[in-house]
Order: sequence, then C-alpha cells, then structure tokens
Amino acid sequence: MEATTAQGRLRGGIDLGGTKIEAIVVDDGNTVLGSSRHPTPSSGGPEAVAAELVKAVRAACDAAKTEPSALQGVGVGSPGVVDEATGAVSTARNLPDWEGSFELGAAVSHELGTPVMVGNDVQVATDAEFELGAGRPYQSLLGVMWGTGVGGGIILDGKPWLGRGGAGEIGHVVVKIDGRRCPCGRRGCMEAYAGRAAMEARARRKHEDGTDTDLFKIMKERGRTKLTSAVWAKALEREDKLATELIDEAVEALGAGIASAQNLLDVQAIVIGGGLGVRLGDPFVKRIRKAMEPHLFNDANWPEVMLAGLGDLGGALGAALLVSRRAEGTPAPVAETPSAPG
Amino acid sequence: MEATTAQGRLRGGIDLGGTKIEAIVVDDGNTVLGSSRHPTPSSGGPEAVAAELVKAVRAACDAAKTEPSALQGVGVGSPGVVDEATGAVSTARNLPDWEGSFELGAAVSHELGTPVMVGNDVQVATDAEFELGAGRPYQSLLGVMWGTGVGGGIILDGKPWLGRGGAGEIGHVVVKIDGRRCPCGRRGCMEAYAGRAAMEARARRKHEDGTDTDLFKIMKERGRTKLTSAVWAKALEREDKLATELIDEAVEALGAGIASAQNLLDVQAIVIGGGLGVRLGDPFVKRIRKAMEPHLFNDANWPEVMLAGLGDLGGALGAALLVSRRAEGTPAPVAETPSAPG
Repeated sequence: MEATTAQGRLRGGIDLGGTKIEAIVVDDGNTVLGSSRHPTPSSGGPEAVAAELVKAVRAACDAAKTEPSALQGVGVGSPGVVDEATGAVSTARNLPDWEGSFELGAAVSHELGTPVMVGNDVQVATDAEFELGAGRPYQSLLGVMWGTGVGGGIILDGKPWLGRGGAGEIGHVVVKIDGRRCPCGRRGCMEAYAGRAAMEARARRKHEDGTDTDLFKIMKERGRTKLTSAVWAKALEREDKLATELIDEAVEALGAGIASAQNLLDVQAIVIGGGLGVRLGDPFVKRIRKAMEPHLFNDANWPEVMLAGLGDLGGALGAALLVSRRAEGTPAPVAETPSAPG
Repeated sequence: MEATTAQGRLRGGIDLGGTKIEAIVVDDGNTVLGSSRHPTPSSGGPEAVAAELVKAVRAACDAAKTEPSALQGVGVGSPGVVDEATGAVSTARNLPDWEGSFELGAAVSHELGTPVMVGNDVQVATDAEFELGAGRPYQSLLGVMWGTGVGGGIILDGKPWLGRGGAGEIGHVVVKIDGRRCPCGRRGCMEAYAGRAAMEARARRKHEDGTDTDLFKIMKERGRTKLTSAVWAKALEREDKLATELIDEAVEALGAGIASAQNLLDVQAIVIGGGLGVRLGDPFVKRIRKAMEPHLFNDANWPEVMLAGLGDLGGALGAALLVSRRAEGTPAPVAETPSAPG
C-alpha cells in the first residue's frame, strides 16, 4: 500500500508547556495533518506528564488517520535542562514535581513504539522560526519566547548555538543591578519584569495591597486560575491601569535585555514569540523595538525585529523538526562539553 | 643566505591604542624578536597615526635586526569599526580626529612595502588569548578587555564570532535601566561604570565638587594627564576612598554584565584582559568572578574565569596572528552580511 510509504515520512511534534501540551502530526512538507491539545497534569510528577504526552500523540494520530508506531519519530520540546543525546529532562520547574532527572524520551518512546527525540522548548521554537517561519531569510537569529518566563534561542551561522547546553538564557540577562526579585531567586533579571509568572505574582501582591485592577475579574470570567496571555490582552484592551503599568515595565525590560543581547551577538534578525508575544502580536513587537532604541549600540545597522511567523504552533513544529534533523543525519547542534584546562 | 628564509616567516604586529602604539616582530613560533612602544599622536588625524605606526614598525624591525619589507606582513589591532577585507577603519573615537573612514591598511602597507591586515583590537587580543594564551584549552571563549572602555571578543566553536561585524560590545550591555550616562551617550551600559574613561570623568566631577582623593595627585606625580591603570592601581594601594568606591562599582557592573553574557553564550571560559584588567591582575579577576555569582544562571556549571595570559602583549601578538591566519588561508572569521528578507 502506498499509504505506508507516505506514512513512513510522517512525524510527530509535541510542545510541552507548563499549562498545555500541544501535539501535532506533520507530513514531509511540515503541513499539519492532525493535532491535539491537552492540559498539562498539575500533579503526578514526570510519569503523569509522560502518560499525557502519549495520549496527546495518540489523539493527534487519530486526527491524522495514522498510528504512533507508523510515525518516523516524535520530537518533544520540553522546558528544563534537556540532554538531547539521552532524552532525559531535569529540573523542569514549570512541570509538576519535576525536581530530579527523568528519562522522558525513553518513557514516551516505549509507550508509542516509535523513536522520541527531546529538545529544549525555546530552542526548538527558534529552530522552527529559522527553518519554516519568520527567520527563514537569515543565517543568524535570536528567538525571544515571551511567556511564563522569557527564553532565548540562538542561531549563528545557520546552526543552533547551545554553548555547553545552557546558552540562550536571555530571561536572566541583568537589566537592573539590585532590581526586582526574579522567580529564579536572583535580582534584576529581565524575566523579573517581563515573565508572565513574575508579572502575575506582582499583580497579586498589588491587588492584595488594595490596588484596583480587573485582571483577576477577567481571569475568573474566563474560568482560569492563572493570568493567561488572553487575560492580559483583555485587561490591556480595557485599559486596566495595573495591567498597563506592568506590561509597560515588561516592554522596557525586554527592550534593554534584547538590545544587550544584540550588542553582544549582532545577529541579522530577532524573532519575538512565546505565549504573550504571539497573543499581543505586531503592535507589541513594534513597542519592544522602540524600547531597544535607547540601548542598541550599533544603531546604524538595526537587525530585523519581527513577530514569530508560526504563531502557537512553532513549538510543536520545531519539535517535529528534531525528527527530520536526526533522520537526515544533520550534525547535532554545536554543543560543547566542558574541557578541563591542562 | 639562510637568514632570508627565516626572515620570510617573521611577522609584525601592532596594538594601536588610545594612548600608546605597541609594535612587535615575531618569528613563526610567536616569540617576540623586537618591540617598540610609541605614544599615540594626540593630533594630526589618521595620517599622523599611520605615520607613527610606520615608525613603530621600523623601530621594532631594527630591534629584531630585520627590515619591514622582509616581513611576511604586518597586522594591526585597531579600535573603531574595522573592515577586515579592505583595511579601512572608521569612527575610532579614541584616536585623534578620526570621525570618517581611513584606509589605514593601505597607507601603512604603502610606506612599509609589506602587506598589512587590520582587525578589531579587542577581537585580535581575544584571538591571541585563544591561540596562545589563557584560552588555549578551550573551544569557546569570551574575552573581556577592561581598559579605557570595556570591549568583548567572542570565540565560538573555535572561531571568532563577529556577527555582522559589530558583535562583542559587552561594554554596552545594559546593567541598569535609567542608570549612569555612558561615554557612548546611552544610559546604564556596563562601561558607564567600568570603563576607565567613564571612571575618570566621574572622579573629576567628584573631585571638583570637593570629594577628597589622591587620584589626581598621583597622576601628576607620575607626569600623566590621564588616570592611567597604574594611577588607579596606586590609589587603590593607598586605599584612596574615591578610587576604591569607583573600582567597587566597576567590579559590580563587570560581574553583572559578564554574567549576562555568560547566561546568553554559555562559553567554556572567560578571559579578563585590557589595561586595567592586566594591571590589577588576579585578585581582581577573583573579585569579578565573585560579582558574577548573584547573576549567573547556570551556577552548577561555572565557566573558567581567568586573567589574560599574554599581559600587555596580547594585542600586538593577536595582530601578528592576522598575518599567519591570512597566509595559511584559514577561513575568515564568521561574519555575515545582512541579507534582506524576501
């Protein structure tokens, strides 16, 4: 049957986020044939998450009229520290009870009967923008994923730059010495001002201290327990004073932090994505660009500053690319093992 | 004569600084056979600087018992924006009346009768540390040249990373939004706190406003018109309060800015050099490392943080490497031309 041959080239991709799991099945042209969105379990640890990933892939396969075992493989974009070689994920703080290391790739692969490759969520989203999205015309790229936290993915000379495995932490670039406390525990990180989790914590404190805001009313209206990107967008639309103030601070911090990164890297293009980035869209990309102006050193030679082109699907598409990259034998991204001095 | 063959492999290197020109002649093992140090002209524009470079190379050749025309070539590490392909230097603010572009390579080559290659001063100093100095055991490196300004050189995967020609501006990484005014005109740059020029300007204002300090007394005792690295070192030794305070602020800013760069790049090693870095030495490298601690994200996996291994000579040695690199046909460092989006 011809279908078998075609299905041999189908790939799965999973974007594993703190609130949702998005699974897709794509063909060799990266067209999405089926997808499925599940809430991320809020308890049960890595095993519960792995089980939900399996369900999400099965549902996406059903939608695409295929079987998990017929897939060429499944890629997972995961938060936390990812070992691409083994598929192990450790210290994924946004996932439930995930303090130690868990062999996520092996666990999911065992259930699905197909190879599973795991990559860093922000890096795979950046890879997707580079290969399929807004970053296609460029050879060097900085992806800024503005969501619960602020993550960065780096492409240099056409290849992901991972450093020793920990590169791209743009959320923890310092924008204010002795500044605001970051969810990571440090002070003055860009994420302390711009991460959705940090903004929510601040909004809650301000609200408890008597500051008037519609943020939590909108949250309840929408049946949410967290200030999602949609809640922030709605509050801004209503010109809620606290929401506007916090988003203004976030934009200022993003401008300083992204300009700092550009002063160091001098890439051709910067792509803004992530939950908040995609939700707030082009007008906010323009505002972030404006906020970079006071800090950009090489201001005679601006990089392109663009909205992510793949929207919400970038993470899952990038995860699916992990499979084709592995299959094509494309050299692994440049990651270095620490070498001891002589 | 055998000497001719040997001399065929001799190379010249020039470190063109804001206060001094250091020229050396090295053999193929990078041993310095002759050197010469001249003050940088404070007037006369690019032509006067070019003439002084020629004199410095001739004097270094005399010391090495050779002739400029017998050299394989001469490399120049220059401040400002350098076009490596043409040898043109533009907007070198630390050099006299150097606003526009000047064909420095061609001018010096014409006088010396030997090929001249020009590179960015900070990048060539980083290259020298990478190939010959403290960075030899590593494949990825961040060079931080702490002097009049604060420059950065980046080596990734064994090759210089220049971006579109403007990478490595670590001095203009923002460490404090709305912070102190930088000599570049922006606010809150690391260099606004840590650059020797910025520190001197602040010391002068404080002194004029009545703050007690020995800095300017020491400067005069040493027959200087600027607060050189030696003047700062002496004032610290005497526990001068203003000098101590300004250096403390510099170290704090360096810690934040370098940690930010590491959070992005995740290199194996960081080398601290430059006039102030080399003069203040190991104890200050330890202090800078300490100042990185509150900001380093991947703190389970520290990079090596080291003093430059080549001392004052790194710039000139790195410049001489430009010649061997060109001769060996080593691919030019990865620099990208901006590509227009389709």
